[in-house]
Parts: sequence; C-alpha cells; structure tokens
Amino acid sequence: MNKKDLVLGIDIGGTNSAFGYVDKNGKCVLDSSIPTLPQNPAEDLFDRLHKKADEVFKNLHNDHNLIGIGIGAPNANYYKGTIEFPPNLNWEIVNVPEIVKKYYDLPCSITNDANAAAIGEMKFGTAKGMKDFILITLGTGLGSGIVVNGQLAYGADGFAGEIGHTIYDPNGRECGCGRKGCLETYASATGIKRTVFELLANLNMDSELRNIPFNQLTAKMISEAALRNDKVALQAFDFTGKVLGLKLADSIAHLSPEAIILFGGLALAGDLIFLPTKKYMEENLLNIFKNKVKLLPSQLTNGNTAVLGAAALIWNELDKSNNFPAEN
Amino acid sequence: MNKKDLVLGIDIGGTNSAFGYVDKNGKCVLDSSIPTLPQNPAEDLFDRLHKKADEVFKNLHNDHNLIGIGIGAPNANYYKGTIEFPPNLNWEIVNVPEIVKKYYDLPCSITNDANAAAIGEMKFGTAKGMKDFILITLGTGLGSGIVVNGQLAYGADGFAGEIGHTIYDPNGRECGCGRKGCLETYASATGIKRTVFELLANLNMDSELRNIPFNQLTAKMISEAALRNDKVALQAFDFTGKVLGLKLADSIAHLSPEAIILFGGLALAGDLIFLPTKKYMEENLLNIFKNKVKLLPSQLTNGNTAVLGAAALIWNELDKSNNFPAEN
Repeated sequence: MNKKDLVLGIDIGGTNSAFGYVDKNGKCVLDSSIPTLPQNPAEDLFDRLHKKADEVFKNLHNDHNLIGIGIGAPNANYYKGTIEFPPNLNWEIVNVPEIVKKYYDLPCSITNDANAAAIGEMKFGTAKGMKDFILITLGTGLGSGIVVNGQLAYGADGFAGEIGHTIYDPNGRECGCGRKGCLETYASATGIKRTVFELLANLNMDSELRNIPFNQLTAKMISEAALRNDKVALQAFDFTGKVLGLKLADSIAHLSPEAIILFGGLALAGDLIFLPTKKYMEENLLNIFKNKVKLLPSQLTNGNTAVLGAAALIWNELDKSNNFPAEN
Repeated sequence: MNKKDLVLGIDIGGTNSAFGYVDKNGKCVLDSSIPTLPQNPAEDLFDRLHKKADEVFKNLHNDHNLIGIGIGAPNANYYKGTIEFPPNLNWEIVNVPEIVKKYYDLPCSITNDANAAAIGEMKFGTAKGMKDFILITLGTGLGSGIVVNGQLAYGADGFAGEIGHTIYDPNGRECGCGRKGCLETYASATGIKRTVFELLANLNMDSELRNIPFNQLTAKMISEAALRNDKVALQAFDFTGKVLGLKLADSIAHLSPEAIILFGGLALAGDLIFLPTKKYMEENLLNIFKNKVKLLPSQLTNGNTAVLGAAALIWNELDKSNNFPAEN
C-alpha cells in the first residue's frame, strides 16, 4: 500500500499555536491547536505540541507518512533556525531545530509569519506560477514576504521583507520599533485606528466612531462604519490607501513584481482598502510600471492560512532538495 | 593548442560606444570605441561596431575563441532583448539579438547599464562571493542593480531596479520621468547641483560656487570646492547623503543586502559622499539591520567598467547554461 506523504505545519502565535497535517497539494487533512502559554519556556510549548500532534496523527490510521516539519513564528530566522526575542512571548533566543529533533528525526524549517504566508501563496494560493511577487500582511502591524526569481528573499541575514518599517514620514507617528513614521504606523489595523483618531481630532463632521474609545476600536468596526457610509471611516480608508499606495510604488520600483497580494485582517475590508490603495499606487508609479502590477487578495482564506504557509515552507524545501519532485 | 575563450562586451552610450574582449577572470585583453552617432538607426551602429571589433580581433593572432556577446545599453530589457526609446538616442524599439545575429552566430544578452554594472561587481569586483547586494550608480541620474540569492532581480517584466525613481518627496523636485520628488532628483550628479542652487538661494554665506552658472556647474566642481572647505558644497554633500541614506534604509528594509555599492561620477567624491550617506543610512535603519550593511565603493574603476559589466552579463549566462562551468 502506498502511504500518502504529509508535513506538519505549525504556527506559533502569542495566544494559541495551531498545527495541521498538510499534503503536497495544500490540503490540510487534520488540524488542531493548543494554548501557547507565552510565559513558559519554548521547550514546554514544543513538548505539548508534540504530544497533541502525535495524538491527532493516530486518527490518520497509519496510512500517512510524516516527512517534514515547517514552522511559522514571529522573529524567526530562516538561516539560523532561531526565534529571537519574539514580541508577546517570554523567550529570548530559541534554537528550534535543536528542540524539534528531540521528537522528530525529520527535516525542519522555520521562518516568520509573513514569509511563510508568501510561500503558502506561491505553492497553494494566489501566486501559484508567479516568480516575482510581494505579499503584504495587514494585521496589527504590516509584514511582508518578497519573492524574486521564484525564491523567497531572505537577504544576507535572514531578515529581509521588513516593508512595514520603510519610512513614510521621518517626523511621523511613533512606531513600536523605536523610530518614527514607519509604514506600519499608517497601513495596518492599528494604523487605520490611529488615522480615525487623527481625523476625529481634525474634522468637525459627525461620525459613529466618536462614541468608541481608542482601546475598543477595531479595524472591523471602522470597516462596518464605512459600509454604513460614515464619512470619517471612509476618509480613514482613503488615507490608508494613499500611504500604502505611495510606498508600494517604491516597492514596485525596486522589484517590478507581477502582483502584490494583500492579506490579513485589514485586507478583509475588500474594496474599501483595495480601491484607494490601487488608485494611489497607480498615481505614484513610474510610467513603465503603470497598469501592469496586479493588486490581489489572498486565496488562503480558509482559517488556517498560517498553518498552510508553514506547511508550504517545508514542502518547498523538500521540493528543492529534489528528493520529492513537485507534482501537480 | 588550447585557444582562450573571450566574450565581447559592448557599452552603448549616447556619445560613444565602447567595447572590449574580456576573459572569464574579467581581464580585458583588447578594447576600443567608436562614435555612436545617435541620429542614425541602430543598424548603422551595429554595422560599424562589428567592422571595428572584427578588425581589432585580428590583433589577437587567432589564439582566442569568441564565445558570446554581452551588451549594456540604456532602457535595455533583458527578457525581450530590446532597447526601448533610449534617452539621447534617436531609436524607438530595437530588437538587438535580431541585429546581432546578422554578424555573429553566438549567444547574446542585453541589459541596462546599472544591471550590467551589478553583474560586473558580482563576477569581477567588490561583490565577488556576495549573494545579496545592491549596486547604485550615481551619474546624471541614479541607476540600480539588485542581486537577490545570487541572481539579478529583473522582476516580472525585466524593468526591476529603478530605485532612482522611488519617491523622496511627493511634492518635491521635478523629475525627468514626469513625476515629482524622485530620489534621483536629489542623489545624483544632477541632484547635488540642484541642491547647491537651492542652498545658494536659501543661505547668505559666501561660496565660490556663486560664480558658476547652473549649466557649467559639475559634481566634480562641487567636490573640489568641498575639499577647499566651501561650506555650501559641504552642506550639499551632507544633504545628498541625508536623502540617499534615508532611502537606502528603505531598500535595506526590503532586501537586507550584505552590501550597497556606490558607483559612478558622484561616488568618486569618496568620503564626501560616503560618510554622510552611511551616517544617515544607519540613523534610519531598523535595529536589526544596524551596523550590518556595508557601504562600499566599486572596484571596477579602471575606465572600462561598463564594458566589463556587459562582458560579465554574458559570462554569467554562459556559466548558468553549464556549458562553461565557472572556474577561478
């Protein structure tokens, strides 16, 4: 009997860590999650992950081979296999393959969430067949994964893809990174919230958003208000698209991608964010790039995207090693 | 007798077109040039180039093999093999391999000047052994060639590497491209000239540059004035470095290169341009990139850089095709 090959994709988050067994076509045959317990050491998380994953694997009735492990985590370094001082986790420098090999004698790869998502899009999603594209995640911050000549750009040190920390305004908003005016302080779920508050301060017009405190406001609320034609919410989306479009034009000038894929919470606002971003992006493009670069939504929207991305990472490594030629 | 393999590197310029026969170690064994005569059709230039190159080749006494042709030209597209509406040349769309095959039955590759220079640095110069770096040419404009994972980034359409047209100030200086505030309107030989004139307008301090009309002022004169401690010239270099450093920090956030190499007329100003650029680049870098990225001068400074770059382009193609494995 031919057993079916699977990889284990793991997404380590600040609250929960999800995992799934994924085949080479991106089908997740089983998934689950456990609490991360961010105050505990990394070893504790991997110990509990292994127990749970093993338990779940038994449901596959011994007709599958596990052949590799892919992990997406904040501040993960692909080259070194480390997670370094991850925000929201009480860890310092964690050597992941060293921990994983206690449980599995299998190839293991790790990268940050946005890079994993980019590989996921390339293998299973919107970017299938593309050799040059940029994935942008619009969540709490702005993450990015850059693909050039069919390969993820990790750069000299494994930290490439920090488009969220390109500078929109050197005298602008305070960023969590300690600098000012980074793109992600404008173009992210948090960024649009800050924009709403700036507009509420500057303008006199009525808005339902005047009744919500900063700490309760979410990008989803802004999106819903905009759909009810709230002028402040609409202006906030327009401004977010203006900043994002301008800076994406810079990214395009660098790399001339076939497409830019928007992903994450704020991207779910659909036309509200896509239309202004596209408009301002085109306005700021050098002539030779105009009307060429697609702005697309992610197709990995079935809830376990991060797990699929992590699985795609290790499938990609296995394909590269030529032991497991890609089939479709 | 073993004949030595050579390629023909050609650099097409607005005034002169240079060429040279270059071996696999980057040694140019013979070079020459002819006037481009930019009003004539492309066919005329290639006809004269072929005659002259053939004539020169005879000096090699039949102990060399010509195995490929590499061409650097403005607005050249690597994928299509075309030169499209080159500035300073009265051509429209020229299909280069089609013309070249009238004279040579050999592999032929073409790309723009900055990309050719980047490949030249990678094969023969400062970037030897590097897999991720960015080359910046500071000439009349600002050109760039981007190398990711050891390969030149051409992007989806062959036009990647337009860092000169990333936007420093959307309301800034008029650019030749029809937009405003592009990096090259500040950081280039022309850009620093514009900065000098802005400073002369804004400040009262004495400067030897007050006696030179715009059309006569060159980056070299500004450089010489700065070496004589002219305050306006020194401020102009500082401001140029400030703009360039800020935007290079954005490029680093994208690609995390091992090095950025500065090349071209303005780069010859040495510390005058390197020190402020490095200072402001570091100031604007995200923490994880600080004190990591080298800012280096080109090592292809022996006068026929562009020819070496064009030769490197075709050597690189020949290496890739595995017919001619790289040796050192």
